[in-house]
Amino acid sequence: MLEAVERQIQHYITDLGDPDARMLYRRLPHGKRLRARLILTIAGTGLPAVKTAAIVEMIHAASLLHDDVLDEAYVRRGRPSINAAFDNKTAIMFGDVLYSKGFHELVDIDRDVARIISDAVVRLSLGERQDIVLAERFNADRTAYLNMIDQKTAALIQASAEAAAHLVGKDRRIYRTYGRNLGLAFQMIDDLLDVTEDAATLGKPAMHDFAEGKTTLPYIYLHEALKGADKQRLAALHGRPLQPEDEAWIRTEMDRHHAIERSRDEAKELIEEAIALMADAGETSLEAIARSMIERSF
Amino acid sequence: MLEAVERQIQHYITDLGDPDARMLYRRLPHGKRLRARLILTIAGTGLPAVKTAAIVEMIHAASLLHDDVLDEAYVRRGRPSINAAFDNKTAIMFGDVLYSKGFHELVDIDRDVARIISDAVVRLSLGERQDIVLAERFNADRTAYLNMIDQKTAALIQASAEAAAHLVGKDRRIYRTYGRNLGLAFQMIDDLLDVTEDAATLGKPAMHDFAEGKTTLPYIYLHEALKGADKQRLAALHGRPLQPEDEAWIRTEMDRHHAIERSRDEAKELIEEAIALMADAGETSLEAIARSMIERSF
Repeated sequence: MLEAVERQIQHYITDLGDPDARMLYRRLPHGKRLRARLILTIAGTGLPAVKTAAIVEMIHAASLLHDDVLDEAYVRRGRPSINAAFDNKTAIMFGDVLYSKGFHELVDIDRDVARIISDAVVRLSLGERQDIVLAERFNADRTAYLNMIDQKTAALIQASAEAAAHLVGKDRRIYRTYGRNLGLAFQMIDDLLDVTEDAATLGKPAMHDFAEGKTTLPYIYLHEALKGADKQRLAALHGRPLQPEDEAWIRTEMDRHHAIERSRDEAKELIEEAIALMADAGETSLEAIARSMIERSF
Repeated sequence: MLEAVERQIQHYITDLGDPDARMLYRRLPHGKRLRARLILTIAGTGLPAVKTAAIVEMIHAASLLHDDVLDEAYVRRGRPSINAAFDNKTAIMFGDVLYSKGFHELVDIDRDVARIISDAVVRLSLGERQDIVLAERFNADRTAYLNMIDQKTAALIQASAEAAAHLVGKDRRIYRTYGRNLGLAFQMIDDLLDVTEDAATLGKPAMHDFAEGKTTLPYIYLHEALKGADKQRLAALHGRPLQPEDEAWIRTEMDRHHAIERSRDEAKELIEEAIALMADAGETSLEAIARSMIERSF
Protein backbone atom coordinates (compact mmCIF):
# COMPACT_ATOMS: atom_id res chain seq x y z
CA MET A 1 0.00 0.00 0.00
CA LEU A 2 3.02 2.29 0.30
CA GLU A 3 3.52 1.99 -3.46
CA ALA A 4 0.83 4.58 -4.10
CA VAL A 5 2.74 6.95 -1.82
CA GLU A 6 6.02 6.36 -3.66
CA ARG A 7 4.27 7.05 -6.97
CA GLN A 8 2.76 10.25 -5.58
CA ILE A 9 6.17 11.47 -4.38
CA GLN A 10 7.64 10.65 -7.82
CA HIS A 11 4.84 12.66 -9.38
CA TYR A 12 5.56 15.68 -7.16
CA ILE A 13 9.29 15.49 -7.88
CA THR A 14 8.76 15.19 -11.64
CA ASP A 15 6.36 18.12 -11.41
CA LEU A 16 9.28 20.33 -10.31
CA GLY A 17 10.59 20.14 -13.87
CA ASP A 18 14.16 20.05 -12.60
CA PRO A 19 16.41 17.14 -13.69
CA ASP A 20 18.77 17.92 -10.84
CA ALA A 21 16.00 17.42 -8.27
CA ARG A 22 15.04 14.07 -9.84
CA MET A 23 18.65 12.89 -9.65
CA LEU A 24 18.98 13.97 -6.01
CA TYR A 25 15.70 12.34 -5.02
CA ARG A 26 16.87 9.02 -6.45
CA ARG A 27 19.90 9.25 -4.12
CA LEU A 28 17.77 9.50 -0.96
CA PRO A 29 17.17 6.33 1.06
CA HIS A 30 13.44 5.71 1.50
CA GLY A 31 13.57 4.65 5.12
CA LYS A 32 10.77 2.80 6.85
CA ARG A 33 8.08 5.31 5.84
CA LEU A 34 6.65 5.10 9.38
CA ARG A 35 4.73 8.36 8.96
CA ALA A 36 3.16 7.32 5.65
CA ARG A 37 2.25 3.93 7.11
CA LEU A 38 0.52 5.56 10.06
CA ILE A 39 -1.45 7.90 7.80
CA LEU A 40 -2.68 5.15 5.46
CA THR A 41 -3.48 2.83 8.36
CA ILE A 42 -5.59 5.52 10.01
CA ALA A 43 -7.15 7.14 6.94
CA GLY A 44 -7.17 4.42 4.26
CA THR A 45 -5.79 4.74 0.75
CA GLY A 46 -7.97 7.44 -0.78
CA LEU A 47 -6.19 10.18 -2.73
CA PRO A 48 -6.17 12.80 0.08
CA ALA A 49 -4.55 10.27 2.45
CA VAL A 50 -1.98 9.18 -0.16
CA LYS A 51 -1.15 12.81 -0.95
CA THR A 52 -0.84 13.71 2.74
CA ALA A 53 1.43 10.70 3.27
CA ALA A 54 3.60 11.66 0.28
CA ILE A 55 3.90 15.26 1.48
CA VAL A 56 4.76 14.25 5.05
CA GLU A 57 7.49 11.91 3.78
CA MET A 58 8.91 14.69 1.58
CA ILE A 59 8.92 17.04 4.57
CA HIS A 60 10.53 14.35 6.71
CA ALA A 61 13.21 13.80 4.04
CA ALA A 62 13.83 17.57 3.94
CA SER A 63 14.29 17.65 7.71
CA LEU A 64 16.80 14.77 7.52
CA LEU A 65 18.76 16.58 4.80
CA HIS A 66 19.13 19.63 7.04
CA ASP A 67 19.64 17.48 10.11
CA ASP A 68 22.61 15.71 8.51
CA VAL A 69 24.21 19.08 7.73
CA LEU A 70 23.61 20.20 11.32
CA ASP A 71 24.94 16.99 12.82
CA GLU A 72 27.81 16.75 10.33
CA ALA A 73 26.58 13.21 9.67
CA TYR A 74 28.08 11.59 6.61
CA VAL A 75 26.21 8.31 6.62
CA ARG A 76 22.46 7.76 6.41
CA ARG A 77 21.17 4.16 6.41
CA GLY A 78 24.61 2.81 5.51
CA ARG A 79 25.00 5.10 2.47
CA PRO A 80 26.79 8.44 2.13
CA SER A 81 24.41 11.28 3.01
CA ILE A 82 23.72 14.01 0.40
CA ASN A 83 25.97 16.45 2.29
CA ALA A 84 28.77 13.84 2.08
CA ALA A 85 28.17 12.66 -1.52
CA PHE A 86 27.70 16.25 -2.77
CA ASP A 87 28.08 19.09 -0.26
CA ASN A 88 26.25 21.03 2.44
CA LYS A 89 24.92 23.50 -0.12
CA THR A 90 23.21 20.77 -2.11
CA ALA A 91 21.68 19.28 1.03
CA ILE A 92 20.39 22.66 2.24
CA MET A 93 18.86 23.67 -1.08
CA PHE A 94 17.36 20.28 -1.90
CA GLY A 95 15.85 20.30 1.59
CA ASP A 96 14.33 23.70 0.87
CA VAL A 97 12.94 22.42 -2.43
CA LEU A 98 11.28 19.42 -0.74
CA TYR A 99 9.91 21.56 2.11
CA SER A 100 8.42 24.17 -0.18
CA LYS A 101 6.99 21.69 -2.68
CA GLY A 102 5.44 19.83 0.26
CA PHE A 103 3.86 23.02 1.61
CA HIS A 104 2.67 24.03 -1.83
CA GLU A 105 0.84 20.74 -2.34
CA LEU A 106 -0.51 20.77 1.22
CA VAL A 107 -2.62 23.82 0.46
CA ASP A 108 -4.72 21.85 -2.01
CA ILE A 109 -5.63 19.01 0.35
CA ASP A 110 -7.50 20.50 3.27
CA ARG A 111 -7.03 23.62 5.35
CA ASP A 112 -6.93 21.75 8.69
CA VAL A 113 -4.44 19.19 7.39
CA ALA A 114 -2.28 22.08 6.15
CA ARG A 115 -2.53 23.76 9.56
CA ILE A 116 -1.66 20.59 11.50
CA ILE A 117 1.32 19.62 9.33
CA SER A 118 2.79 23.11 8.94
CA ASP A 119 2.57 23.68 12.70
CA ALA A 120 4.49 20.43 13.21
CA VAL A 121 7.22 21.66 10.87
CA VAL A 122 7.59 24.87 12.91
CA ARG A 123 8.03 22.72 16.04
CA LEU A 124 10.37 20.31 14.26
CA SER A 125 12.62 23.20 13.18
CA LEU A 126 12.65 24.71 16.68
CA GLY A 127 13.43 21.24 18.06
CA GLU A 128 16.36 20.68 15.72
CA ARG A 129 17.81 24.01 16.79
CA GLN A 130 17.21 23.09 20.44
CA ASP A 131 19.02 19.79 19.90
CA ILE A 132 22.12 21.75 18.84
CA VAL A 133 21.81 24.30 21.66
CA LEU A 134 21.40 21.62 24.35
CA ALA A 135 24.53 19.86 23.07
CA GLU A 136 26.70 22.90 23.78
CA ARG A 137 27.07 21.81 27.39
CA PHE A 138 26.31 18.66 29.38
CA ASN A 139 22.52 18.75 29.59
CA ALA A 140 21.40 17.00 32.78
CA ASP A 141 17.85 18.33 32.55
CA ARG A 142 15.42 15.53 31.64
CA THR A 143 12.56 17.97 30.95
CA ALA A 144 14.65 19.95 28.49
CA TYR A 145 15.53 16.69 26.70
CA LEU A 146 11.87 15.59 26.61
CA ASN A 147 10.69 18.95 25.27
CA MET A 148 13.35 18.82 22.59
CA ILE A 149 12.44 15.33 21.31
CA ASP A 150 8.75 16.24 21.56
CA GLN A 151 9.45 18.97 19.01
CA LYS A 152 12.20 17.35 16.96
CA THR A 153 10.69 13.89 16.49
CA ALA A 154 7.23 13.53 18.02
CA ALA A 155 5.67 16.65 16.45
CA LEU A 156 5.57 15.33 12.87
CA ILE A 157 4.51 11.80 13.83
CA GLN A 158 1.79 13.21 16.08
CA ALA A 159 0.68 15.54 13.27
CA SER A 160 0.62 12.63 10.80
CA ALA A 161 -1.75 10.68 13.03
CA GLU A 162 -3.90 13.71 13.82
CA ALA A 163 -4.15 14.85 10.19
CA ALA A 164 -5.07 11.32 9.09
CA ALA A 165 -7.77 11.07 11.78
CA HIS A 166 -9.16 14.43 10.66
CA LEU A 167 -9.33 13.29 7.02
CA VAL A 168 -11.74 10.47 7.92
CA GLY A 169 -13.55 12.15 10.81
CA LYS A 170 -12.05 10.06 13.61
CA ASP A 171 -11.44 11.57 17.08
CA ARG A 172 -8.33 13.68 16.53
CA ARG A 173 -7.26 13.80 20.19
CA ILE A 174 -6.86 10.04 20.59
CA TYR A 175 -4.75 9.65 17.43
CA ARG A 176 -2.77 12.71 18.35
CA THR A 177 -1.78 11.19 21.69
CA TYR A 178 -1.06 7.86 20.03
CA GLY A 179 1.24 9.57 17.51
CA ARG A 180 2.97 11.65 20.16
CA ASN A 181 3.69 8.62 22.36
CA LEU A 182 4.99 6.67 19.39
CA GLY A 183 7.18 9.57 18.35
CA LEU A 184 8.68 10.10 21.80
CA ALA A 185 9.29 6.36 22.25
CA PHE A 186 10.76 6.13 18.75
CA GLN A 187 13.36 8.80 19.54
CA MET A 188 14.13 7.31 22.97
CA ILE A 189 14.72 3.91 21.39
CA ASP A 190 16.89 5.44 18.67
CA ASP A 191 18.95 7.18 21.36
CA LEU A 192 19.23 3.92 23.33
CA LEU A 193 20.45 1.96 20.31
CA ASP A 194 23.30 4.44 19.99
CA VAL A 195 24.46 3.20 23.42
CA THR A 196 23.61 -0.48 23.26
CA GLU A 197 24.47 -1.45 19.67
CA ASP A 198 27.86 -1.72 18.02
CA ALA A 199 29.08 0.29 15.03
CA ALA A 200 28.44 -2.53 12.53
CA THR A 201 24.74 -2.78 13.48
CA LEU A 202 24.28 0.98 13.59
CA GLY A 203 26.08 1.72 10.33
CA LYS A 204 27.81 4.57 12.21
CA PRO A 205 30.15 4.82 15.23
CA ALA A 206 28.61 3.67 18.55
CA MET A 207 28.06 6.17 21.39
CA HIS A 208 28.30 8.86 18.77
CA ASP A 209 25.56 11.02 20.32
CA PHE A 210 27.56 11.65 23.47
CA ALA A 211 30.74 12.44 21.54
CA GLU A 212 28.62 14.99 19.67
CA GLY A 213 27.56 16.51 22.98
CA LYS A 214 24.08 15.00 23.08
CA THR A 215 23.09 13.68 26.50
CA THR A 216 20.19 11.34 25.90
CA LEU A 217 18.12 9.66 28.65
CA PRO A 218 20.64 6.99 29.78
CA TYR A 219 23.33 9.68 30.19
CA ILE A 220 20.93 11.91 32.12
CA TYR A 221 19.96 9.01 34.43
CA LEU A 222 23.60 7.99 34.87
CA HIS A 223 24.55 11.56 35.72
CA GLU A 224 21.74 11.66 38.28
CA ALA A 225 23.01 8.45 39.91
CA LEU A 226 26.75 9.18 39.97
CA LYS A 227 28.40 11.05 42.85
CA GLY A 228 31.58 13.09 43.36
CA ALA A 229 34.52 12.30 41.14
CA ASP A 230 32.51 9.87 38.97
CA LYS A 231 29.92 12.54 38.23
CA GLN A 232 32.72 14.92 37.26
CA ARG A 233 34.39 12.28 35.09
CA LEU A 234 31.19 11.74 33.11
CA ALA A 235 30.63 15.47 32.65
CA ALA A 236 34.26 15.93 31.55
CA LEU A 237 33.89 13.29 28.80
CA HIS A 238 31.06 15.24 27.18
CA GLY A 239 31.40 16.39 23.59
CA ARG A 240 34.72 14.72 22.72
CA PRO A 241 35.58 11.45 20.94
CA LEU A 242 35.52 8.68 23.60
CA GLN A 243 38.58 6.56 24.35
CA PRO A 244 37.81 2.79 24.50
CA GLU A 245 38.39 2.73 28.29
CA ASP A 246 35.96 5.61 28.82
CA GLU A 247 33.39 3.91 26.62
CA ALA A 248 33.74 0.71 28.69
CA TRP A 249 33.51 2.68 31.93
CA ILE A 250 30.28 4.40 30.84
CA ARG A 251 28.72 1.06 29.89
CA THR A 252 29.68 -0.52 33.21
CA GLU A 253 28.31 2.40 35.20
CA MET A 254 25.13 2.46 33.15
CA ASP A 255 24.65 -1.22 33.97
CA ARG A 256 25.36 -0.72 37.65
CA HIS A 257 22.89 2.16 37.93
CA HIS A 258 20.22 0.66 35.63
CA ALA A 259 20.37 3.71 33.36
CA ILE A 260 19.54 1.71 30.21
CA GLU A 261 16.75 -0.16 31.95
CA ARG A 262 15.11 3.00 33.25
CA SER A 263 15.24 4.62 29.80
CA ARG A 264 13.88 1.49 28.17
CA ASP A 265 11.03 1.26 30.67
CA GLU A 266 10.13 4.84 29.99
CA ALA A 267 9.85 4.21 26.24
CA LYS A 268 7.94 1.01 26.87
CA GLU A 269 5.42 2.77 29.06
CA LEU A 270 4.68 5.31 26.33
CA ILE A 271 4.17 2.54 23.81
CA GLU A 272 1.94 0.56 26.15
CA GLU A 273 -0.24 3.62 26.66
CA ALA A 274 -0.44 3.98 22.87
CA ILE A 275 -1.40 0.31 22.52
CA ALA A 276 -4.12 0.65 25.16
CA LEU A 277 -5.59 3.68 23.37
CA MET A 278 -5.79 1.77 20.09
CA ALA A 279 -7.17 -1.35 21.78
CA ASP A 280 -10.01 0.82 23.12
CA ALA A 281 -10.58 2.31 19.68
CA GLY A 282 -10.59 -1.16 18.06
CA GLU A 283 -7.62 -0.22 15.84
CA THR A 284 -5.85 -3.57 15.62
CA SER A 285 -3.35 -2.54 12.93
CA LEU A 286 -2.27 0.55 14.85
CA GLU A 287 -1.87 -1.58 17.98
CA ALA A 288 0.39 -3.85 15.92
CA ILE A 289 2.52 -0.95 14.63
CA ALA A 290 3.13 0.18 18.21
CA ARG A 291 3.81 -3.39 19.38
CA SER A 292 6.34 -4.00 16.59
CA MET A 293 8.25 -0.99 17.84
CA ILE A 294 8.82 -2.75 21.15
CA GLU A 295 9.58 -6.12 19.61
CA ARG A 296 12.06 -4.88 17.07
CA SER A 297 14.07 -2.84 19.46
CA PHE A 298 14.24 -4.60 22.80
CA MET B 1 2.76 52.07 6.61
CA LEU B 2 5.45 49.42 6.95
CA GLU B 3 5.15 49.69 10.73
CA ALA B 4 2.06 47.48 10.76
CA VAL B 5 4.10 44.85 8.88
CA GLU B 6 6.96 45.04 11.41
CA ARG B 7 4.45 44.62 14.27
CA GLN B 8 2.87 41.64 12.52
CA ILE B 9 6.27 39.96 12.06
CA GLN B 10 7.06 40.64 15.75
CA HIS B 11 3.75 39.03 16.64
CA TYR B 12 4.52 35.90 14.58
CA ILE B 13 8.00 35.63 16.09
CA THR B 14 6.72 36.04 19.67
CA ASP B 15 4.07 33.46 18.88
CA LEU B 16 6.85 30.86 18.40
CA GLY B 17 7.36 30.92 22.16
CA ASP B 18 11.10 30.54 21.68
CA PRO B 19 13.42 33.15 23.28
CA ASP B 20 16.21 32.03 20.99
CA ALA B 21 14.16 32.84 17.89
CA ARG B 22 13.33 36.31 19.27
CA MET B 23 17.00 37.02 19.88
CA LEU B 24 17.97 35.84 16.37
CA TYR B 25 15.22 37.86 14.73
CA ARG B 26 16.49 41.03 16.43
CA ARG B 27 19.87 40.41 14.79
CA LEU B 28 18.48 40.38 11.26
CA PRO B 29 18.77 43.58 9.19
CA HIS B 30 15.32 44.67 7.97
CA GLY B 31 16.35 45.64 4.46
CA LYS B 32 14.25 47.81 2.20
CA ARG B 33 11.10 45.70 2.58
CA LEU B 34 10.53 46.02 -1.17
CA ARG B 35 8.15 43.05 -1.22
CA ALA B 36 6.05 44.34 1.69
CA ARG B 37 5.93 47.79 0.13
CA LEU B 38 4.66 46.37 -3.16
CA ILE B 39 1.99 44.35 -1.41
CA LEU B 40 0.64 47.25 0.64
CA THR B 41 0.79 49.63 -2.32
CA ILE B 42 -1.25 47.21 -4.42
CA ALA B 43 -3.63 45.85 -1.78
CA GLY B 44 -3.86 48.58 0.86
CA THR B 45 -3.33 48.13 4.59
CA GLY B 46 -6.12 45.75 5.56
CA LEU B 47 -5.19 42.84 7.82
CA PRO B 48 -4.89 40.19 5.04
CA ALA B 49 -2.49 42.45 3.12
CA VAL B 50 -0.42 43.23 6.23
CA LYS B 51 -0.26 39.53 7.12
CA THR B 52 0.72 38.56 3.57
CA ALA B 53 3.43 41.23 3.58
CA ALA B 54 4.75 40.04 6.96
CA ILE B 55 4.84 36.43 5.80
CA VAL B 56 6.56 37.26 2.51
CA GLU B 57 9.23 39.26 4.38
CA MET B 58 9.78 36.32 6.79
CA ILE B 59 10.12 33.96 3.83
CA HIS B 60 12.50 36.39 2.13
CA ALA B 61 14.58 36.62 5.33
CA ALA B 62 14.67 32.81 5.50
CA SER B 63 15.91 32.61 1.91
CA LEU B 64 18.68 35.15 2.67
CA LEU B 65 19.75 33.13 5.74
CA HIS B 66 20.19 30.03 3.57
CA ASP B 67 21.64 32.06 0.72
CA ASP B 68 24.40 33.45 2.95
CA VAL B 69 25.33 29.91 4.01
CA LEU B 70 25.38 28.83 0.36
CA ASP B 71 27.42 31.82 -0.77
CA GLU B 72 29.70 31.72 2.29
CA ALA B 73 28.82 35.40 2.71
CA TYR B 74 29.83 36.85 6.05
CA VAL B 75 28.47 40.36 5.68
CA ARG B 76 24.86 41.40 5.09
CA ARG B 77 24.11 45.13 4.85
CA GLY B 78 27.40 46.01 6.50
CA ARG B 79 26.81 43.74 9.52
CA PRO B 80 28.02 40.19 10.20
CA SER B 81 25.53 37.68 8.77
CA ILE B 82 23.94 35.11 11.13
CA ASN B 83 26.23 32.38 9.75
CA ALA B 84 29.21 34.59 10.59
CA ALA B 85 28.01 35.89 14.00
CA PHE B 86 26.82 32.40 15.06
CA ASP B 87 27.36 29.52 12.65
CA ASN B 88 25.91 27.81 9.59
CA LYS B 89 23.74 25.57 11.77
CA THR B 90 22.02 28.52 13.38
CA ALA B 91 21.42 30.14 10.00
CA ILE B 92 19.99 26.95 8.50
CA MET B 93 17.65 26.19 11.40
CA PHE B 94 16.46 29.74 11.93
CA GLY B 95 15.76 29.89 8.19
CA ASP B 96 13.68 26.71 8.51
CA VAL B 97 11.78 28.21 11.46
CA LEU B 98 10.94 31.38 9.49
CA TYR B 99 9.96 29.39 6.39
CA SER B 100 7.67 27.03 8.26
CA LYS B 101 6.08 29.72 10.43
CA GLY B 102 5.46 31.71 7.25
CA PHE B 103 3.81 28.74 5.55
CA HIS B 104 1.76 27.94 8.64
CA GLU B 105 0.32 31.45 8.78
CA LEU B 106 -0.21 31.54 5.02
CA VAL B 107 -2.81 28.80 5.27
CA ASP B 108 -5.12 31.08 7.25
CA ILE B 109 -5.11 33.96 4.79
CA ASP B 110 -6.49 32.68 1.52
CA ARG B 111 -6.01 29.51 -0.47
CA ASP B 112 -4.93 31.29 -3.66
CA VAL B 113 -2.48 33.53 -1.82
CA ALA B 114 -1.02 30.41 -0.19
CA ARG B 115 -0.74 28.73 -3.60
CA ILE B 116 0.92 31.73 -5.26
CA ILE B 117 3.45 32.33 -2.48
CA SER B 118 4.35 28.69 -1.84
CA ASP B 119 4.87 28.09 -5.56
CA ALA B 120 7.26 31.05 -5.60
CA VAL B 121 9.24 29.51 -2.74
CA VAL B 122 9.63 26.27 -4.70
CA ARG B 123 11.00 28.29 -7.62
CA LEU B 124 13.19 30.40 -5.35
CA SER B 125 14.77 27.26 -3.86
CA LEU B 126 15.35 25.72 -7.28
CA GLY B 127 16.85 29.05 -8.42
CA GLU B 128 19.26 29.24 -5.49
CA ARG B 129 20.45 25.74 -6.30
CA GLN B 130 20.80 26.68 -9.97
CA ASP B 131 22.86 29.74 -9.01
CA ILE B 132 25.37 27.40 -7.33
CA VAL B 133 25.34 24.87 -10.19
CA LEU B 134 25.88 27.54 -12.88
CA ALA B 135 28.87 28.91 -10.92
CA GLU B 136 30.71 25.60 -11.19
CA ARG B 137 32.00 26.58 -14.64
CA PHE B 138 32.10 29.79 -16.71
CA ASN B 139 28.48 30.18 -17.72
CA ALA B 140 28.31 32.00 -21.06
CA ASP B 141 24.64 31.15 -21.59
CA ARG B 142 22.47 34.26 -21.20
CA THR B 143 19.23 32.22 -21.16
CA ALA B 144 20.46 30.03 -18.32
CA TYR B 145 21.35 33.16 -16.35
CA LEU B 146 17.94 34.74 -17.02
CA ASN B 147 16.07 31.58 -16.03
CA MET B 148 18.08 31.39 -12.82
CA ILE B 149 17.37 34.98 -11.71
CA ASP B 150 13.76 34.56 -12.77
CA GLN B 151 13.51 31.79 -10.16
CA LYS B 152 15.95 33.07 -7.55
CA THR B 153 14.83 36.71 -7.38
CA ALA B 154 11.86 37.49 -9.59
CA ALA B 155 9.60 34.62 -8.45
CA LEU B 156 8.89 35.98 -4.95
CA ILE B 157 8.54 39.63 -6.08
CA GLN B 158 6.22 38.53 -8.88
CA ALA B 159 4.23 36.41 -6.41
CA SER B 160 4.01 39.33 -3.96
CA ALA B 161 2.46 41.54 -6.62
CA GLU B 162 0.16 38.79 -7.90
CA ALA B 163 -1.04 37.77 -4.43
CA ALA B 164 -1.69 41.40 -3.49
CA ALA B 165 -3.69 41.96 -6.69
CA HIS B 166 -5.71 38.82 -5.96
CA LEU B 167 -6.52 40.03 -2.41
CA VAL B 168 -8.28 43.12 -3.77
CA GLY B 169 -9.64 41.65 -6.99
CA LYS B 170 -7.31 43.48 -9.38
CA ASP B 171 -6.16 41.88 -12.67
CA ARG B 172 -3.55 39.36 -11.51
CA ARG B 173 -1.74 39.09 -14.84
CA ILE B 174 -0.79 42.77 -15.10
CA TYR B 175 0.64 42.92 -11.56
CA ARG B 176 2.36 39.60 -12.07
CA THR B 177 4.23 40.95 -15.11
CA TYR B 178 5.01 44.17 -13.26
CA GLY B 179 6.47 42.19 -10.33
CA ARG B 180 8.44 39.89 -12.58
CA ASN B 181 10.00 42.77 -14.53
CA LEU B 182 10.87 44.57 -11.32
CA GLY B 183 12.40 41.40 -9.87
CA LEU B 184 14.52 40.65 -12.93
CA ALA B 185 15.70 44.27 -13.18
CA PHE B 186 16.39 44.37 -9.45
CA GLN B 187 18.74 41.37 -9.72
CA MET B 188 20.40 42.69 -12.87
CA ILE B 189 21.09 46.02 -11.15
CA ASP B 190 22.40 44.26 -8.06
CA ASP B 191 24.74 42.24 -10.28
CA LEU B 192 25.86 45.40 -12.09
CA LEU B 193 26.65 47.22 -8.84
CA ASP B 194 29.03 44.38 -7.98
CA VAL B 195 31.05 45.42 -11.06
CA THR B 196 30.65 49.20 -11.04
CA GLU B 197 30.84 50.10 -7.34
CA ASP B 198 33.82 49.96 -5.01
CA ALA B 199 34.11 47.84 -1.86
CA ALA B 200 33.33 50.76 0.49
CA THR B 201 29.99 51.49 -1.22
CA LEU B 202 29.07 47.80 -1.48
CA GLY B 203 30.01 46.87 2.08
CA LYS B 204 31.71 43.79 0.58
CA PRO B 205 34.59 43.19 -1.89
CA ALA B 206 33.97 44.49 -5.42
CA MET B 207 33.71 42.05 -8.35
CA HIS B 208 33.03 39.38 -5.79
CA ASP B 209 30.41 37.57 -7.91
CA PHE B 210 32.96 36.64 -10.57
CA ALA B 211 35.51 35.48 -8.00
CA GLU B 212 32.72 33.25 -6.67
CA GLY B 213 32.20 31.84 -10.14
CA LYS B 214 29.06 33.79 -10.98
CA THR B 215 29.01 35.17 -14.50
CA THR B 216 26.38 37.88 -14.51
CA LEU B 217 25.18 39.77 -17.62
CA PRO B 218 28.20 42.08 -18.14
CA TYR B 219 30.54 39.08 -18.01
CA ILE B 220 28.34 37.15 -20.43
CA TYR B 221 28.28 40.11 -22.85
CA LEU B 222 32.02 40.65 -22.50
CA HIS B 223 32.66 36.96 -23.16
CA GLU B 224 30.48 37.20 -26.27
CA ALA B 225 32.48 40.21 -27.55
CA LEU B 226 36.02 38.99 -26.83
CA LYS B 227 37.97 36.87 -29.30
CA GLY B 228 40.89 34.44 -29.17
CA ALA B 229 43.39 34.88 -26.35
CA ASP B 230 41.30 37.58 -24.63
CA LYS B 231 38.27 35.29 -24.50
CA GLN B 232 40.49 32.58 -23.00
CA ARG B 233 41.98 35.01 -20.49
CA LEU B 234 38.52 35.98 -19.22
CA ALA B 235 37.40 32.36 -18.93
CA ALA B 236 40.60 31.44 -17.09
CA LEU B 237 40.02 34.16 -14.45
CA HIS B 238 36.67 32.61 -13.49
CA GLY B 239 36.06 31.45 -9.93
CA ARG B 240 39.31 32.70 -8.33
CA PRO B 241 40.19 35.86 -6.38
CA LEU B 242 41.08 38.54 -8.93
CA GLN B 243 44.47 40.29 -9.01
CA PRO B 244 44.24 44.12 -9.27
CA GLU B 245 45.62 44.06 -12.83
CA ASP B 246 43.00 41.49 -13.92
CA GLU B 247 40.28 43.56 -12.29
CA ALA B 248 41.47 46.64 -14.17
CA TRP B 249 41.67 44.67 -17.44
CA ILE B 250 38.10 43.42 -17.08
CA ARG B 251 36.83 46.94 -16.42
CA THR B 252 38.66 48.32 -19.46
CA GLU B 253 37.39 45.57 -21.73
CA MET B 254 33.84 45.96 -20.40
CA ASP B 255 34.03 49.66 -21.25
CA ARG B 256 35.46 49.02 -24.70
CA HIS B 257 32.75 46.47 -25.54
CA HIS B 258 29.88 48.33 -23.84
CA ALA B 259 29.12 45.32 -21.64
CA ILE B 260 27.91 47.45 -18.71
CA GLU B 261 25.85 49.66 -20.99
CA ARG B 262 24.14 46.69 -22.64
CA SER B 263 23.29 45.14 -19.27
CA ARG B 264 22.04 48.45 -17.92
CA ASP B 265 19.83 49.00 -20.97
CA GLU B 266 18.35 45.57 -20.54
CA ALA B 267 17.37 46.28 -16.93
CA LYS B 268 16.07 49.71 -17.92
CA GLU B 269 13.88 48.25 -20.62
CA LEU B 270 12.24 45.86 -18.14
CA ILE B 271 11.56 48.73 -15.75
CA GLU B 272 10.17 50.92 -18.49
CA GLU B 273 7.77 48.18 -19.51
CA ALA B 274 6.71 47.90 -15.84
CA ILE B 275 6.18 51.67 -15.64
CA ALA B 276 4.07 51.65 -18.81
CA LEU B 277 1.87 48.85 -17.43
CA MET B 278 1.21 50.81 -14.24
CA ALA B 279 0.65 54.07 -16.13
CA ASP B 280 -2.08 52.29 -18.09
CA ALA B 281 -3.57 50.93 -14.87
CA GLY B 282 -3.49 54.37 -13.24
CA GLU B 283 -1.21 53.09 -10.46
CA THR B 284 0.89 56.20 -9.82
CA SER B 285 2.61 54.86 -6.66
CA LEU B 286 3.66 51.65 -8.36
CA GLU B 287 5.00 53.67 -11.30
CA ALA B 288 7.04 55.66 -8.75
CA ILE B 289 8.45 52.52 -7.09
CA ALA B 290 9.66 51.28 -10.47
CA ARG B 291 11.03 54.69 -11.42
CA SER B 292 12.96 55.02 -8.14
CA MET B 293 14.70 51.77 -8.98
CA ILE B 294 16.20 53.38 -12.08
CA GLU B 295 17.06 56.65 -10.37
CA ARG B 296 18.74 55.13 -7.36
CA SER B 297 20.94 52.80 -9.30
CA PHE B 298 22.07 54.53 -12.47
